[in-house]
Amino acid sequence: MEDSLTRPSSPAGLSCYVAVSQLLGLTVIAMTGAWMGQYRGGIAWESALQFNVHPLCMIIGMVFLQGDALLVYRVFRNETKRSAKILHGLLHAFALVIALVGVIAVFDYHRKKGFADMYSLHSWCGITAFSLYFIQWLMGFSFFLFPGTSFSLRSRYKPQHVFFGVFLLVLSIATCLLGIKELLLFNIQTTYSSFVPEGILANILGLLLIVFGLVIGYILTWDEWKRPPLAEELALSMDFKTLTKGESPSCSQ
Amino acid sequence: MEDSLTRPSSPAGLSCYVAVSQLLGLTVIAMTGAWMGQYRGGIAWESALQFNVHPLCMIIGMVFLQGDALLVYRVFRNETKRSAKILHGLLHAFALVIALVGVIAVFDYHRKKGFADMYSLHSWCGITAFSLYFIQWLMGFSFFLFPGTSFSLRSRYKPQHVFFGVFLLVLSIATCLLGIKELLLFNIQTTYSSFVPEGILANILGLLLIVFGLVIGYILTWDEWKRPPLAEELALSMDFKTLTKGESPSCSQ
Repeated sequence: MEDSLTRPSSPAGLSCYVAVSQLLGLTVIAMTGAWMGQYRGGIAWESALQFNVHPLCMIIGMVFLQGDALLVYRVFRNETKRSAKILHGLLHAFALVIALVGVIAVFDYHRKKGFADMYSLHSWCGITAFSLYFIQWLMGFSFFLFPGTSFSLRSRYKPQHVFFGVFLLVLSIATCLLGIKELLLFNIQTTYSSFVPEGILANILGLLLIVFGLVIGYILTWDEWKRPPLAEELALSMDFKTLTKGESPSCSQ
Repeated sequence: MEDSLTRPSSPAGLSCYVAVSQLLGLTVIAMTGAWMGQYRGGIAWESALQFNVHPLCMIIGMVFLQGDALLVYRVFRNETKRSAKILHGLLHAFALVIALVGVIAVFDYHRKKGFADMYSLHSWCGITAFSLYFIQWLMGFSFFLFPGTSFSLRSRYKPQHVFFGVFLLVLSIATCLLGIKELLLFNIQTTYSSFVPEGILANILGLLLIVFGLVIGYILTWDEWKRPPLAEELALSMDFKTLTKGESPSCSQ
Protein backbone atom coordinates (compact mmCIF):
# COMPACT_ATOMS: atom_id res chain seq x y z
CA MET A 1 0.00 0.00 0.00
CA GLU A 2 2.80 2.37 0.98
CA ASP A 3 4.71 1.48 -2.18
CA SER A 4 1.70 2.21 -4.35
CA LEU A 5 1.42 5.64 -2.72
CA THR A 6 5.02 6.66 -3.32
CA ARG A 7 5.23 5.05 -6.77
CA PRO A 8 1.81 5.30 -8.39
CA SER A 9 1.51 3.03 -11.39
CA SER A 10 0.81 4.38 -14.89
CA PRO A 11 -2.86 4.82 -15.79
CA ALA A 12 -4.07 1.68 -17.61
CA GLY A 13 -5.29 3.59 -20.66
CA LEU A 14 -1.92 5.30 -21.05
CA SER A 15 0.02 2.01 -21.18
CA CYS A 16 -2.37 0.72 -23.82
CA TYR A 17 -2.04 3.82 -26.03
CA VAL A 18 1.76 3.84 -25.62
CA ALA A 19 1.88 0.17 -26.69
CA VAL A 20 -0.22 0.98 -29.77
CA SER A 21 2.06 3.93 -30.63
CA GLN A 22 5.16 1.70 -30.42
CA LEU A 23 3.55 -0.97 -32.57
CA LEU A 24 2.63 1.68 -35.14
CA GLY A 25 6.10 3.24 -35.02
CA LEU A 26 7.86 -0.09 -35.58
CA THR A 27 5.37 -0.97 -38.33
CA VAL A 28 6.06 2.23 -40.30
CA ILE A 29 9.82 1.64 -40.02
CA ALA A 30 9.41 -1.98 -41.19
CA MET A 31 7.12 -0.91 -44.05
CA THR A 32 9.57 1.75 -45.21
CA GLY A 33 12.37 -0.84 -45.15
CA ALA A 34 10.16 -3.30 -47.04
CA TRP A 35 9.25 -0.63 -49.63
CA MET A 36 12.92 0.23 -50.24
CA GLY A 37 13.97 -3.44 -50.20
CA GLN A 38 11.18 -4.93 -52.26
CA TYR A 39 10.45 -2.21 -54.83
CA ARG A 40 13.40 0.24 -54.83
CA GLY A 41 16.32 -2.19 -55.01
CA GLY A 42 17.52 -2.10 -51.39
CA ILE A 43 19.77 0.24 -49.43
CA ALA A 44 23.45 1.09 -49.85
CA TRP A 45 25.61 4.20 -49.38
CA GLU A 46 27.99 3.91 -52.32
CA SER A 47 25.61 3.46 -55.26
CA ALA A 48 22.37 4.74 -56.82
CA LEU A 49 20.68 3.08 -53.83
CA GLN A 50 22.05 5.84 -51.60
CA PHE A 51 18.78 7.72 -52.04
CA ASN A 52 16.93 4.92 -50.23
CA VAL A 53 18.84 5.71 -47.03
CA HIS A 54 16.91 9.01 -46.93
CA PRO A 55 13.30 7.79 -46.35
CA LEU A 56 14.38 5.16 -43.83
CA CYS A 57 16.50 7.57 -41.76
CA MET A 58 13.83 10.31 -41.81
CA ILE A 59 11.11 7.91 -40.65
CA ILE A 60 13.32 6.51 -37.86
CA GLY A 61 14.67 9.91 -36.75
CA MET A 62 12.05 12.56 -37.47
CA VAL A 63 9.01 10.37 -36.77
CA PHE A 64 9.64 7.37 -34.52
CA LEU A 65 12.40 8.70 -32.25
CA GLN A 66 11.00 12.25 -32.20
CA GLY A 67 7.60 10.85 -31.22
CA ASP A 68 9.09 8.61 -28.55
CA ALA A 69 11.11 11.50 -27.10
CA LEU A 70 7.82 13.40 -26.61
CA LEU A 71 6.40 10.48 -24.62
CA VAL A 72 9.25 10.32 -22.09
CA TYR A 73 7.50 12.42 -19.41
CA ARG A 74 4.35 10.29 -19.69
CA VAL A 75 6.05 6.87 -19.76
CA PHE A 76 8.77 7.48 -17.13
CA ARG A 77 6.39 9.38 -14.86
CA ASN A 78 7.88 8.04 -11.64
CA GLU A 79 11.52 8.82 -12.42
CA THR A 80 13.04 12.12 -11.27
CA LYS A 81 12.40 15.08 -13.54
CA ARG A 82 16.13 15.40 -14.26
CA SER A 83 16.38 11.77 -15.46
CA ALA A 84 13.33 12.27 -17.69
CA LYS A 85 14.80 15.51 -19.07
CA ILE A 86 18.12 13.85 -19.92
CA LEU A 87 16.42 10.92 -21.65
CA HIS A 88 14.12 13.36 -23.53
CA GLY A 89 17.15 15.38 -24.70
CA LEU A 90 19.18 12.27 -25.61
CA LEU A 91 16.37 10.73 -27.67
CA HIS A 92 15.94 14.01 -29.58
CA ALA A 93 19.71 14.21 -30.12
CA PHE A 94 19.73 10.63 -31.42
CA ALA A 95 16.78 11.48 -33.71
CA LEU A 96 18.67 14.53 -35.02
CA VAL A 97 21.82 12.52 -35.81
CA ILE A 98 19.88 9.82 -37.69
CA ALA A 99 17.90 12.47 -39.57
CA LEU A 100 21.17 14.25 -40.44
CA VAL A 101 22.45 11.02 -42.04
CA GLY A 102 19.21 10.93 -44.06
CA VAL A 103 19.62 14.56 -45.14
CA ILE A 104 23.27 14.02 -46.15
CA ALA A 105 22.26 10.90 -48.11
CA VAL A 106 19.79 12.77 -50.32
CA PHE A 107 22.04 15.81 -50.92
CA ASP A 108 24.97 13.52 -51.76
CA TYR A 109 22.80 11.43 -54.09
CA HIS A 110 21.56 14.59 -55.87
CA ARG A 111 25.14 15.88 -56.22
CA LYS A 112 26.39 12.61 -57.74
CA LYS A 113 23.41 12.43 -60.14
CA GLY A 114 23.49 16.15 -60.99
CA PHE A 115 19.90 16.65 -59.77
CA ALA A 116 18.70 20.05 -58.55
CA ASP A 117 18.29 20.59 -54.81
CA MET A 118 15.69 22.37 -52.75
CA TYR A 119 13.08 23.16 -55.38
CA SER A 120 10.18 21.03 -54.15
CA LEU A 121 7.57 21.63 -51.44
CA HIS A 122 8.83 18.44 -49.76
CA SER A 123 12.36 19.83 -49.55
CA TRP A 124 11.17 23.25 -48.33
CA CYS A 125 9.08 21.64 -45.59
CA GLY A 126 11.84 19.16 -44.77
CA ILE A 127 14.62 21.70 -44.36
CA THR A 128 12.28 23.91 -42.30
CA ALA A 129 11.33 21.00 -40.03
CA PHE A 130 14.94 19.85 -39.60
CA SER A 131 16.30 23.36 -38.90
CA LEU A 132 13.52 24.21 -36.45
CA TYR A 133 13.98 20.82 -34.76
CA PHE A 134 17.66 21.58 -34.24
CA ILE A 135 16.87 25.08 -32.91
CA GLN A 136 14.18 23.61 -30.63
CA TRP A 137 16.76 21.15 -29.25
CA LEU A 138 19.28 23.95 -28.61
CA MET A 139 16.62 26.10 -26.93
CA GLY A 140 15.42 23.16 -24.82
CA PHE A 141 18.99 22.39 -23.75
CA SER A 142 19.72 26.04 -22.89
CA PHE A 143 16.53 26.57 -20.93
CA PHE A 144 16.04 23.25 -19.17
CA LEU A 145 19.37 21.43 -18.89
CA PHE A 146 21.98 24.20 -18.88
CA PRO A 147 22.33 25.38 -15.28
CA GLY A 148 21.62 28.99 -14.45
CA THR A 149 18.33 29.60 -16.28
CA SER A 150 15.88 31.07 -13.77
CA PHE A 151 12.76 29.21 -12.68
CA SER A 152 10.51 32.01 -13.97
CA LEU A 153 12.15 31.99 -17.43
CA ARG A 154 11.75 28.19 -17.61
CA SER A 155 8.09 28.42 -16.59
CA ARG A 156 7.37 31.01 -19.27
CA TYR A 157 9.20 29.14 -22.03
CA LYS A 158 7.81 25.69 -21.22
CA PRO A 159 4.35 26.02 -22.89
CA GLN A 160 6.04 27.34 -26.07
CA HIS A 161 8.51 24.42 -26.01
CA VAL A 162 5.69 21.90 -25.62
CA PHE A 163 3.52 23.48 -28.35
CA PHE A 164 6.37 23.69 -30.87
CA GLY A 165 7.44 20.15 -29.96
CA VAL A 166 4.06 18.80 -31.05
CA PHE A 167 4.02 21.10 -34.10
CA LEU A 168 7.43 19.80 -35.23
CA LEU A 169 6.27 16.18 -35.05
CA VAL A 170 3.18 17.09 -37.11
CA LEU A 171 5.30 19.01 -39.64
CA SER A 172 7.74 16.08 -39.87
CA ILE A 173 4.91 13.63 -40.59
CA ALA A 174 3.39 15.98 -43.21
CA THR A 175 6.83 16.22 -44.84
CA CYS A 176 7.07 12.41 -44.92
CA LEU A 177 3.67 12.24 -46.65
CA LEU A 178 4.96 14.69 -49.28
CA GLY A 179 8.08 12.57 -49.67
CA ILE A 180 6.02 9.39 -50.16
CA LYS A 181 3.93 11.16 -52.81
CA GLU A 182 7.04 12.50 -54.57
CA LEU A 183 8.72 9.10 -54.64
CA LEU A 184 5.58 7.46 -56.04
CA LEU A 185 5.02 10.06 -58.75
CA PHE A 186 8.70 10.00 -59.78
CA ASN A 187 8.76 6.20 -60.06
CA ILE A 188 5.32 4.75 -60.75
CA GLN A 189 3.29 7.69 -62.10
CA THR A 190 2.02 5.65 -65.07
CA THR A 191 0.96 2.60 -63.04
CA TYR A 192 -0.04 4.26 -59.74
CA SER A 193 -3.68 4.57 -60.84
CA SER A 194 -3.85 0.79 -61.51
CA PHE A 195 -3.58 0.11 -57.77
CA VAL A 196 -0.17 -1.59 -58.10
CA PRO A 197 1.13 -3.16 -54.85
CA GLU A 198 3.89 -0.54 -54.39
CA GLY A 199 1.34 2.27 -54.53
CA ILE A 200 -0.98 0.56 -52.06
CA LEU A 201 1.92 -0.22 -49.69
CA ALA A 202 3.07 3.42 -49.77
CA ASN A 203 -0.49 4.75 -49.29
CA ILE A 204 -0.99 2.49 -46.24
CA LEU A 205 2.38 3.67 -44.92
CA GLY A 206 1.13 7.26 -45.25
CA LEU A 207 -2.08 6.51 -43.36
CA LEU A 208 -0.19 4.68 -40.60
CA LEU A 209 2.14 7.67 -40.21
CA ILE A 210 -0.95 9.84 -39.66
CA VAL A 211 -2.35 7.35 -37.11
CA PHE A 212 1.04 7.31 -35.32
CA GLY A 213 0.89 11.12 -35.03
CA LEU A 214 -2.73 10.92 -33.91
CA VAL A 215 -1.97 8.46 -31.09
CA ILE A 216 1.08 10.41 -29.89
CA GLY A 217 -0.95 13.65 -30.00
CA TYR A 218 -3.77 12.01 -28.04
CA ILE A 219 -1.40 10.78 -25.32
CA LEU A 220 0.28 14.19 -25.03
CA THR A 221 -2.89 16.26 -24.83
CA TRP A 222 -4.82 14.02 -22.43
CA ASP A 223 -4.76 16.01 -19.18
CA GLU A 224 -5.14 13.02 -16.85
CA TRP A 225 -2.03 11.38 -18.30
CA LYS A 226 0.26 14.34 -17.66
CA ARG A 227 3.19 13.60 -15.38
CA PRO A 228 2.26 14.66 -11.85
CA PRO A 229 5.16 16.38 -10.03
CA LEU A 230 6.81 14.13 -7.41
CA ALA A 231 6.40 15.29 -3.79
CA GLU A 232 10.01 16.53 -3.51
CA GLU A 233 9.74 18.49 -6.80
CA LEU A 234 6.61 20.22 -5.57
CA ALA A 235 8.34 21.27 -2.34
CA LEU A 236 11.45 22.45 -4.24
CA SER A 237 9.39 24.44 -6.73
CA MET A 238 7.49 26.16 -3.89
CA ASP A 239 10.80 27.04 -2.17
CA PHE A 240 12.21 28.40 -5.42
CA LYS A 241 9.12 30.49 -6.08
CA THR A 242 9.30 32.00 -2.60
CA LEU A 243 13.01 32.69 -2.98
CA THR A 244 12.73 34.39 -6.37
CA LYS A 245 9.47 36.21 -5.71
CA GLY A 246 11.18 39.48 -4.81
CA GLU A 247 13.48 39.67 -7.83
CA SER A 248 11.25 38.36 -10.63
CA PRO A 249 7.77 39.84 -10.63
CA SER A 250 6.89 38.04 -13.86
CA CYS A 251 7.17 34.73 -12.04
CA SER A 252 3.52 34.59 -11.23
CA GLN A 253 2.40 35.18 -14.83
CA MET B 1 -16.13 50.31 -15.21
CA GLU B 2 -19.23 48.22 -14.67
CA ASP B 3 -19.44 47.48 -18.38
CA SER B 4 -15.83 46.28 -18.46
CA LEU B 5 -16.62 43.91 -15.59
CA THR B 6 -19.65 42.30 -17.22
CA ARG B 7 -18.12 42.28 -20.72
CA PRO B 8 -14.38 41.72 -20.37
CA SER B 9 -12.51 42.62 -23.57
CA SER B 10 -10.52 40.02 -25.52
CA PRO B 11 -6.88 39.63 -24.50
CA ALA B 12 -4.71 41.86 -26.72
CA GLY B 13 -2.48 39.01 -27.88
CA LEU B 14 -5.50 36.97 -28.95
CA SER B 15 -6.86 39.72 -31.24
CA CYS B 16 -3.46 40.07 -32.85
CA TYR B 17 -3.11 36.31 -33.52
CA VAL B 18 -6.70 36.09 -34.82
CA ALA B 19 -5.98 39.00 -37.22
CA VAL B 20 -2.85 37.21 -38.48
CA SER B 21 -4.82 33.97 -38.96
CA GLN B 22 -7.47 35.78 -41.03
CA LEU B 23 -4.83 37.49 -43.14
CA LEU B 24 -3.17 34.13 -43.75
CA GLY B 25 -6.49 32.44 -44.52
CA LEU B 26 -7.50 35.07 -47.07
CA THR B 27 -4.00 35.01 -48.59
CA VAL B 28 -4.06 31.22 -49.18
CA ILE B 29 -7.51 31.52 -50.82
CA ALA B 30 -6.29 34.39 -53.04
CA MET B 31 -3.10 32.48 -53.93
CA THR B 32 -5.07 29.34 -54.85
CA GLY B 33 -7.36 31.48 -57.04
CA ALA B 34 -4.33 33.16 -58.62
CA TRP B 35 -2.67 29.77 -59.24
CA MET B 36 -5.78 28.39 -60.96
CA GLY B 37 -6.39 31.63 -62.86
CA GLN B 38 -2.85 32.44 -63.93
CA TYR B 39 -1.34 28.99 -64.60
CA ARG B 40 -4.22 26.49 -64.88
CA GLY B 41 -6.56 28.36 -67.26
CA GLY B 42 -9.19 29.60 -64.80
CA ILE B 43 -12.27 28.06 -63.25
CA ALA B 44 -15.49 26.75 -64.84
CA TRP B 45 -17.93 23.90 -64.12
CA GLU B 46 -18.75 22.74 -67.64
CA SER B 47 -15.30 22.20 -69.18
CA ALA B 48 -11.88 20.72 -68.52
CA LEU B 49 -11.47 23.60 -66.06
CA GLN B 50 -13.93 21.85 -63.72
CA PHE B 51 -10.97 20.28 -61.91
CA ASN B 52 -9.84 23.74 -60.79
CA VAL B 53 -13.00 24.13 -58.70
CA HIS B 54 -11.61 21.35 -56.47
CA PRO B 55 -8.52 23.03 -54.94
CA LEU B 56 -10.32 26.34 -54.42
CA CYS B 57 -13.34 24.77 -52.68
CA MET B 58 -11.19 22.53 -50.49
CA ILE B 59 -9.00 25.43 -49.34
CA ILE B 60 -12.06 27.61 -48.60
CA GLY B 61 -14.07 24.84 -46.91
CA MET B 62 -11.67 22.38 -45.30
CA VAL B 63 -9.03 24.96 -44.31
CA PHE B 64 -10.28 28.54 -43.98
CA LEU B 65 -13.86 27.97 -42.79
CA GLN B 66 -12.97 24.91 -40.71
CA GLY B 67 -10.18 26.90 -39.04
CA ASP B 68 -12.46 29.87 -38.41
CA ALA B 69 -15.18 27.64 -36.95
CA LEU B 70 -12.62 26.42 -34.37
CA LEU B 71 -11.93 30.01 -33.32
CA VAL B 72 -15.56 30.92 -32.58
CA TYR B 73 -15.34 30.25 -28.82
CA ARG B 74 -12.18 32.39 -28.54
CA VAL B 75 -13.36 35.30 -30.71
CA PHE B 76 -16.98 35.54 -29.50
CA ARG B 77 -16.01 34.96 -25.89
CA ASN B 78 -18.62 37.36 -24.49
CA GLU B 79 -21.61 35.97 -26.35
CA THR B 80 -23.79 33.29 -24.75
CA LYS B 81 -22.54 29.73 -25.11
CA ARG B 82 -25.60 28.80 -27.16
CA SER B 83 -24.96 31.59 -29.72
CA ALA B 84 -21.31 30.54 -29.99
CA LYS B 85 -22.34 26.89 -30.43
CA ILE B 86 -24.81 27.73 -33.20
CA LEU B 87 -22.23 29.86 -35.07
CA HIS B 88 -19.61 27.10 -34.61
CA GLY B 89 -22.00 24.49 -36.04
CA LEU B 90 -23.14 26.76 -38.90
CA LEU B 91 -19.59 27.60 -39.98
CA HIS B 92 -18.69 23.89 -40.01
CA ALA B 93 -21.88 23.12 -41.99
CA PHE B 94 -20.99 25.87 -44.49
CA ALA B 95 -17.44 24.44 -44.74
CA LEU B 96 -18.87 20.95 -45.36
CA VAL B 97 -21.16 22.17 -48.17
CA ILE B 98 -18.34 24.05 -49.95
CA ALA B 99 -16.01 21.07 -49.54
CA LEU B 100 -18.74 18.79 -50.93
CA VAL B 101 -18.89 20.94 -54.09
CA GLY B 102 -15.10 20.54 -54.37
CA VAL B 103 -15.35 16.76 -53.95
CA ILE B 104 -18.14 16.48 -56.55
CA ALA B 105 -16.10 18.64 -58.95
CA VAL B 106 -13.12 16.29 -58.92
CA PHE B 107 -15.17 13.05 -59.16
CA ASP B 108 -17.24 14.53 -62.01
CA TYR B 109 -14.08 15.68 -63.81
CA HIS B 110 -12.49 12.21 -63.43
CA ARG B 111 -15.68 10.56 -64.72
CA LYS B 112 -15.84 12.80 -67.81
CA LYS B 113 -12.13 12.27 -68.55
CA GLY B 114 -12.19 8.54 -67.76
CA PHE B 115 -9.53 8.91 -65.05
CA ALA B 116 -9.27 6.44 -62.17
CA ASP B 117 -10.57 7.48 -58.76
CA MET B 118 -9.28 6.96 -55.23
CA TYR B 119 -5.91 5.42 -55.95
CA SER B 120 -3.61 8.15 -54.56
CA LEU B 121 -2.49 8.94 -51.01
CA HIS B 122 -4.05 12.41 -51.49
CA SER B 123 -7.45 10.88 -52.26
CA TRP B 124 -7.22 8.38 -49.40
CA CYS B 125 -6.37 11.15 -46.91
CA GLY B 126 -8.96 13.48 -48.45
CA ILE B 127 -11.88 11.06 -48.29
CA THR B 128 -10.87 10.10 -44.73
CA ALA B 129 -10.72 13.76 -43.66
CA PHE B 130 -14.04 14.63 -45.33
CA SER B 131 -15.90 11.60 -43.93
CA LEU B 132 -14.53 12.07 -40.41
CA TYR B 133 -15.35 15.79 -40.61
CA PHE B 134 -18.96 14.96 -41.46
CA ILE B 135 -19.15 12.38 -38.64
CA GLN B 136 -17.59 14.90 -36.23
CA TRP B 137 -20.26 17.44 -37.22
CA LEU B 138 -23.05 14.91 -36.66
CA MET B 139 -21.60 13.89 -33.28
CA GLY B 140 -21.16 17.54 -32.26
CA PHE B 141 -24.75 18.32 -33.24
CA SER B 142 -26.13 15.28 -31.38
CA PHE B 143 -24.17 15.90 -28.21
CA PHE B 144 -24.15 19.69 -27.92
CA LEU B 145 -27.10 21.13 -29.86
CA PHE B 146 -29.70 18.36 -29.83
CA PRO B 147 -31.68 18.71 -26.61
CA GLY B 148 -31.74 15.84 -24.18
CA THR B 149 -28.07 14.85 -24.00
CA SER B 150 -27.09 14.75 -20.34
CA PHE B 151 -24.59 17.19 -18.86
CA SER B 152 -22.27 14.36 -17.81
CA LEU B 153 -22.25 12.82 -21.30
CA ARG B 154 -21.46 16.22 -22.84
CA SER B 155 -18.63 16.78 -20.34
CA ARG B 156 -17.11 13.41 -21.14
CA TYR B 157 -17.36 13.81 -24.91
CA LYS B 158 -16.13 17.43 -25.06
CA PRO B 159 -12.34 16.78 -24.77
CA GLN B 160 -12.61 14.14 -27.54
CA HIS B 161 -14.58 16.57 -29.74
CA VAL B 162 -11.96 19.29 -29.23
CA PHE B 163 -8.99 16.96 -29.87
CA PHE B 164 -10.48 15.47 -33.04
CA GLY B 165 -11.48 18.96 -34.20
CA VAL B 166 -7.85 20.08 -34.16
CA PHE B 167 -6.73 16.75 -35.68
CA LEU B 168 -9.18 17.15 -38.58
CA LEU B 169 -7.86 20.63 -39.40
CA VAL B 170 -4.29 19.28 -39.36
CA LEU B 171 -5.29 16.30 -41.55
CA SER B 172 -7.09 18.64 -43.97
CA ILE B 173 -4.02 20.85 -44.31
CA ALA B 174 -1.75 17.81 -44.82
CA THR B 175 -4.16 16.59 -47.52
CA CYS B 176 -3.98 20.00 -49.24
CA LEU B 177 -0.17 19.79 -49.24
CA LEU B 178 -0.42 16.37 -50.93
CA GLY B 179 -2.87 17.85 -53.45
CA ILE B 180 -0.49 20.74 -54.25
CA LYS B 181 2.35 18.27 -54.76
CA GLU B 182 0.18 16.03 -56.98
CA LEU B 183 -0.97 18.93 -59.14
CA LEU B 184 2.60 20.17 -59.58
CA LEU B 185 4.03 16.76 -60.49
CA PHE B 186 1.17 16.05 -62.92
CA ASN B 187 1.60 19.39 -64.69
CA ILE B 188 5.13 20.76 -64.36
CA GLN B 189 7.26 17.74 -63.40
CA THR B 190 9.86 18.52 -66.08
CA THR B 191 10.24 22.21 -65.21
CA TYR B 192 9.56 22.13 -61.43
CA SER B 193 13.28 21.75 -60.65
CA SER B 194 14.08 24.93 -62.64
CA PHE B 195 12.29 27.04 -60.01
CA VAL B 196 9.54 28.13 -62.42
CA PRO B 197 7.12 30.75 -61.00
CA GLU B 198 4.20 28.27 -60.75
CA GLY B 199 6.27 25.91 -58.63
CA ILE B 200 7.46 28.68 -56.34
CA LEU B 201 3.91 30.07 -55.97
CA ALA B 202 2.57 26.62 -55.06
CA ASN B 203 5.43 25.95 -52.62
CA ILE B 204 4.79 29.26 -50.85
CA LEU B 205 1.08 28.41 -50.75
CA GLY B 206 1.99 25.13 -49.03
CA LEU B 207 4.15 26.88 -46.43
CA LEU B 208 1.43 29.48 -45.75
CA LEU B 209 -1.11 26.69 -45.22
CA ILE B 210 1.21 25.24 -42.58
CA VAL B 211 1.62 28.65 -40.91
CA PHE B 212 -2.19 29.09 -40.94
CA GLY B 213 -2.55 25.77 -39.11
CA LEU B 214 0.24 26.73 -36.73
CA VAL B 215 -1.42 30.04 -35.77
CA ILE B 216 -4.87 28.45 -35.34
CA GLY B 217 -3.31 25.66 -33.25
CA TYR B 218 -1.47 28.21 -31.12
CA ILE B 219 -4.65 30.20 -30.44
CA LEU B 220 -6.60 27.05 -29.54
CA THR B 221 -4.04 25.56 -27.19
CA TRP B 222 -3.13 28.74 -25.32
CA ASP B 223 -4.77 28.25 -21.92
CA GLU B 224 -5.14 31.94 -21.09
CA TRP B 225 -7.17 32.55 -24.25
CA LYS B 226 -9.79 29.89 -23.53
CA ARG B 227 -13.33 31.20 -23.25
CA PRO B 228 -14.10 31.76 -19.56
CA PRO B 229 -17.65 30.65 -18.65
CA LEU B 230 -20.04 33.57 -18.15
CA ALA B 231 -21.33 34.05 -14.59
CA GLU B 232 -24.80 32.68 -15.41
CA GLU B 233 -23.34 29.60 -17.18
CA LEU B 234 -21.22 28.82 -14.14
CA ALA B 235 -24.25 29.01 -11.85
CA LEU B 236 -26.34 26.88 -14.23
CA SER B 237 -23.61 24.27 -14.55
CA MET B 238 -23.30 24.03 -10.76
CA ASP B 239 -27.07 23.62 -10.42
CA PHE B 240 -27.08 20.94 -13.09
CA LYS B 241 -24.20 19.06 -11.48
CA THR B 242 -25.98 19.09 -8.12
CA LEU B 243 -29.23 17.91 -9.72
CA THR B 244 -27.64 15.02 -11.65
CA LYS B 245 -25.16 13.98 -8.97
CA GLY B 246 -27.33 11.19 -7.63
CA GLU B 247 -28.09 9.57 -10.97
CA SER B 248 -24.78 9.89 -12.82
CA PRO B 249 -21.80 8.94 -10.71
CA SER B 250 -19.44 9.35 -13.69
CA CYS B 251 -20.23 13.08 -13.74
CA SER B 252 -17.22 13.99 -11.65
CA GLN B 253 -14.76 12.12 -13.89
